[in-house]
Amino acid sequence: MNEKKRVLIWNEYRHEQINEKVKAIYPKGIHHAIGEGLGSELEIGYATLEEVEHGLSEERLNETDVLIWWGHKAHREVMDEIVERVYKRVLAGMGLIVLHSGHFSKIFKKLMGTTCNLKWREADEKERLWVVAPGHPIVEGIGEYIELEQEEMYGESFEIPTPDELIFVSWFEGGEVFRSGCTYQRGQGKIFYFRPGHETYPTYYNDQIRAVIRNTVHWAAPTTRPAPSFGNRKPLEKLKSQQEV
Amino acid sequence: MNEKKRVLIWNEYRHEQINEKVKAIYPKGIHHAIGEGLGSELEIGYATLEEVEHGLSEERLNETDVLIWWGHKAHREVMDEIVERVYKRVLAGMGLIVLHSGHFSKIFKKLMGTTCNLKWREADEKERLWVVAPGHPIVEGIGEYIELEQEEMYGESFEIPTPDELIFVSWFEGGEVFRSGCTYQRGQGKIFYFRPGHETYPTYYNDQIRAVIRNTVHWAAPTTRPAPSFGNRKPLEKLKSQQEV
Amino acid sequence: MNEKKRVLIWNEYRHEQINEKVKAIYPKGIHHAIGEGLGSELEIGYATLEEVEHGLSEERLNETDVLIWWGHKAHREVMDEIVERVYKRVLAGMGLIVLHSGHFSKIFKKLMGTTCNLKWREADEKERLWVVAPGHPIVEGIGEYIELEQEEMYGESFEIPTPDELIFVSWFEGGEVFRSGCTYQRGQGKIFYFRPGHETYPTYYNDQIRAVIRNTVHWAAPTTRPAPSFGNRKPLEKLKSQQEV
Amino acid sequence: MNEKKRVLIWNEYRHEQINEKVKAIYPKGIHHAIGEGLGSELEIGYATLEEVEHGLSEERLNETDVLIWWGHKAHREVMDEIVERVYKRVLAGMGLIVLHSGHFSKIFKKLMGTTCNLKWREADEKERLWVVAPGHPIVEGIGEYIELEQEEMYGESFEIPTPDELIFVSWFEGGEVFRSGCTYQRGQGKIFYFRPGHETYPTYYNDQIRAVIRNTVHWAAPTTRPAPSFGNRKPLEKLKSQQEV
Repeated sequence: MNEKKRVLIWNEYRHEQINEKVKAIYPKGIHHAIGEGLGSELEIGYATLEEVEHGLSEERLNETDVLIWWGHKAHREVMDEIVERVYKRVLAGMGLIVLHSGHFSKIFKKLMGTTCNLKWREADEKERLWVVAPGHPIVEGIGEYIELEQEEMYGESFEIPTPDELIFVSWFEGGEVFRSGCTYQRGQGKIFYFRPGHETYPTYYNDQIRAVIRNTVHWAAPTTRPAPSFGNRKPLEKLKSQQEV
Repeated sequence: MNEKKRVLIWNEYRHEQINEKVKAIYPKGIHHAIGEGLGSELEIGYATLEEVEHGLSEERLNETDVLIWWGHKAHREVMDEIVERVYKRVLAGMGLIVLHSGHFSKIFKKLMGTTCNLKWREADEKERLWVVAPGHPIVEGIGEYIELEQEEMYGESFEIPTPDELIFVSWFEGGEVFRSGCTYQRGQGKIFYFRPGHETYPTYYNDQIRAVIRNTVHWAAPTTRPAPSFGNRKPLEKLKSQQEV
Repeated sequence: MNEKKRVLIWNEYRHEQINEKVKAIYPKGIHHAIGEGLGSELEIGYATLEEVEHGLSEERLNETDVLIWWGHKAHREVMDEIVERVYKRVLAGMGLIVLHSGHFSKIFKKLMGTTCNLKWREADEKERLWVVAPGHPIVEGIGEYIELEQEEMYGESFEIPTPDELIFVSWFEGGEVFRSGCTYQRGQGKIFYFRPGHETYPTYYNDQIRAVIRNTVHWAAPTTRPAPSFGNRKPLEKLKSQQEV
Repeated sequence: MNEKKRVLIWNEYRHEQINEKVKAIYPKGIHHAIGEGLGSELEIGYATLEEVEHGLSEERLNETDVLIWWGHKAHREVMDEIVERVYKRVLAGMGLIVLHSGHFSKIFKKLMGTTCNLKWREADEKERLWVVAPGHPIVEGIGEYIELEQEEMYGESFEIPTPDELIFVSWFEGGEVFRSGCTYQRGQGKIFYFRPGHETYPTYYNDQIRAVIRNTVHWAAPTTRPAPSFGNRKPLEKLKSQQEV
């Protein structure tokens, strides 16, 4: 329990290299801004699309307690084989935090079983994330809402399965709402989808957004217990059909 | 509302043709036994694996309100293209009832986002399905439990997402329990997984099992409303950024 | 199934008698405006606070499939004995639709187990109720959202248990969101809390609001099945402790 | 985070004083057996029915992170005023673990909003608690099931609200099942109902039962954040109605 939890922050890392505006906000990449917000209690690593196996080797994943995922314009370039690998690790207990446009990542869609489609708009508008699960560990230290002066809008319908727990609901200046913080359990793994974080805004420097991600790492870390077993099984109790023989 | 709901019962239809024991129980196939149990209030059709496009043409699915799925040994033979087609229809509102070993069908695994693995045993043992959602329309007319003298055992862990609603929990003679009746919403579609129905037992002639399936057809039929829309949207309210211009 | 469902609309019926503005909008009382919106497929009755036993005699409740509740300024005047009676009927299967300020009614708080407290503001502002459960029968015929030009604001935190199903989320002009349509199961009874309907606005004449209430009556009507039984029970299977004797 | 969580174990403490069999198993009372199982990482206190204010003074509750409740034959003797006090503390964030026959305690029924009735039998029979939420922190270190050679049977229907999370389902030798581990959120408080623990069996000496209770204390401890606020509120955004003036 006292060992540091191991977080791996995965970033597509494209916008920051080709878009001056994004580069100015996140000169070392979104992944580093997120990592710097996690504080010193966690062991933090980074991986990006361009690395061999996208930086997600079998070994690396096996040494990861919680994987954070940011992707947007290159979802298709993520190899199916790696998606399958991440999928198995999640079912085996690794936590997964999917950020913003990661809603359309292969791994999230595969785990959800839906299109994860939504409405969107880039118009520098205000977002206010209201807490609707007031005692949840993910909102430790968070007030009634988080206000972001400028963000991209994501609006309902959001084609996801009903969340196991709904933590945040966003209000947008333009008239929409969105289920912005959603937890899911898949196998032994815990998943959190967290909406904010468009690349053209400094969202990942916001203290409360950082606190939510940090809290979520603690929440999503694996529960240590024997893996469930499947397949053909002998009865635990004597059956009548056996007794009669 | 007064029009007959259109049910399509899909069966792999293999065991009944090659296994004498199964053929003796279900001479016309499991699909016909299910269909005969649905009564006259519904419009019933049938489709099987061997048909062109597995009997699941675009047209046929578009004319289907609720699809019932029974498969076991030939899950792999179901073409991915047809799975994709059924998937889209479910998201668009078609109900889906997945029976027994259909837990391992491509369509169910795709919609769930998990392996749907479980424990199993064929030992002619007693199953008792207890109702744990006492006011749900799926259990209309059903007593506190349904008892089946002989069934295959399915036991936990059952690697599924947490059900939106848990309707039945099974007790098995050999010492296991199982979440036997689970509802899910995916897109506009309603899904029910219902455990009983191993091919070597006359389960689909049981009046209460038939009542549950019949009730579920009514529950799972599409809700008529405009399809949700997705993508880029103009604001519904005037934005400050616009006003300033 | 073909018999008409019996709806009883209960209204405190005070504002309409003492406030000219409300009287002008609802001259026959809010209950009648709601009733007129339910159409001819239902059998509709009315009851108000001033009647003997608040119009909620044992007999009357026993003949009711779904009870609709509107109250605001006289929650305390509702007798505990009658609340207990309604409570038992809900657990036994009667549907309950709690409207707007009914969130603070004795019956709703008793069934929820929380304070049901919230934020509020009367400022003639716009409300937009977004559908977040796209396939639910409660939203049959309803588009992506319902817009109300003027309504009272109710804002989060709303101190309720996590809804079994969240159907609507409201956006308010003033910056808040609210879980506006929430289902709960209690015993065999189905409950729906539906936010809109402040007495100074003509909300219950809105076609879509009426459609939601009408849909909900169908959804909340009792499921017919034997009442669950409780207490001391003999084993259904032979116990080892018995066999050894 | 590093401070010890403060647990208060409340026991009715009657059976142990008047029943020789129970006294032999729990000579210092059930509360002490539970406390000894919690280990040294927690700060543990005790309170019983006979104490002034049942040992649950305002001060004491304010210094409690998680309250554990065991009661059976004297539920009625618990004063309503104290129940109200515990209720408010739970809504304000104190965790509550309700054990076994505590299902009929005033505090549990008040928080649930239902009768919490069930079936029961004392027949020295086997219980097997199956884990159905494989990644939940409450089952840290727990295998696929916990087996108890002899326990009282509790069977469905269990008249509770649908649990927010279902953690355990019990199999009983006599043929019943039961939702044995259920979480609920009420206000800012987290609640866990955990079935086992009849006074005539040494259940609270079982290592796995103790581990579950210990895990639950960590899970149920309060989330630190500002209390939600309620009541009349000014708009966070400028309203059209205001702008026009």
